[in-house]
Amino acid sequence: MIAFRNFIENYTVLPDHEWKFIQKAFNKKEYSKNEIILAEGRICKYFYFLEEGLLRYFVLNDGNDVTRFFTIAPYCFTSKDSFRNQTPATENIQALKKSIVWQTTLSQSNKLLELKSWNTFTRNFIHEVQSYTEELLFEIKTESARQRYIKLLEKYPGQIQNIPLKYLSIFLGIAPQSLSRIRKNTLKY
Amino acid sequence: MIAFRNFIENYTVLPDHEWKFIQKAFNKKEYSKNEIILAEGRICKYFYFLEEGLLRYFVLNDGNDVTRFFTIAPYCFTSKDSFRNQTPATENIQALKKSIVWQTTLSQSNKLLELKSWNTFTRNFIHEVQSYTEELLFEIKTESARQRYIKLLEKYPGQIQNIPLKYLSIFLGIAPQSLSRIRKNTLKY
Repeated sequence: MIAFRNFIENYTVLPDHEWKFIQKAFNKKEYSKNEIILAEGRICKYFYFLEEGLLRYFVLNDGNDVTRFFTIAPYCFTSKDSFRNQTPATENIQALKKSIVWQTTLSQSNKLLELKSWNTFTRNFIHEVQSYTEELLFEIKTESARQRYIKLLEKYPGQIQNIPLKYLSIFLGIAPQSLSRIRKNTLKY
Repeated sequence: MIAFRNFIENYTVLPDHEWKFIQKAFNKKEYSKNEIILAEGRICKYFYFLEEGLLRYFVLNDGNDVTRFFTIAPYCFTSKDSFRNQTPATENIQALKKSIVWQTTLSQSNKLLELKSWNTFTRNFIHEVQSYTEELLFEIKTESARQRYIKLLEKYPGQIQNIPLKYLSIFLGIAPQSLSRIRKNTLKY
């Protein structure tokens, strides 16, 4: 669980006694490749830390499987609106390879907000997620799929290659054939 | 300033004594039509509440004016990364019509975080902004410009018509001529 402590410490100062509280609030779980962690229509009961693995968020839009995002370890994730409001999720979360997660419930995470470190961590974390989402939205309007693919490769070296072409191409908004061509031309990464 | 109190109360319970603290931390300012509130390269010194008016966020991308977002009153806004880190902004914020804002500094807003109401308000607010940004990102991949335009009209009835065609079309990612045609066909809204 040291990976989680290190992760939080990227966002805030974390005193030992507060880390002990946080640690107790989380339980470990493992998912195998392709396993569904959260299915659309179910309530997302947990806020997670992804210690090891790779996830994708997707929806079925008029029968089409549309990949919305990927989560690459180490990172935190949840289905935000479903978790915060305890309402049915409007998206699916799937492990793309064997994944190790740590999970906590809403009532536990609300208690953790009393800790200055956890309060600051979650605030800084959601700001980071927001900046990243804004960046994606801007890039999709102003950059080619090739440019966006190369950025992903640079940001997550050695990890993007693990994502099946069919998911990555829909995420980038291009045909799998085009992505396959781009991949061949960017093998130096 | 009652509009600001009402706005915060959409997100959290706000006791009178905490509202008095918040109120004292904000100062009023007015901007005229087309005035620049924040210029790229300057440090964003304030977190704002937009009481009245309409704003757009834009960047100059290889010389092209690209509109990223609009803010429609009543709503809060800032240039998040620039404000939080006190670093030069990478975007511009412009009033598209006469606008009334209330502003507070970073040090004041950090003090306000000690208030339970302000802490909860800002947390819930950023979650809402994040959900909205995710929705935009999803819609741009799965819906036509016409569908996205109609959604905007439904969400902000009577306000979208105030946005010049040239800004709205770039925001939607279509040619001004296409948007003009869509507008003519959706006059019932």
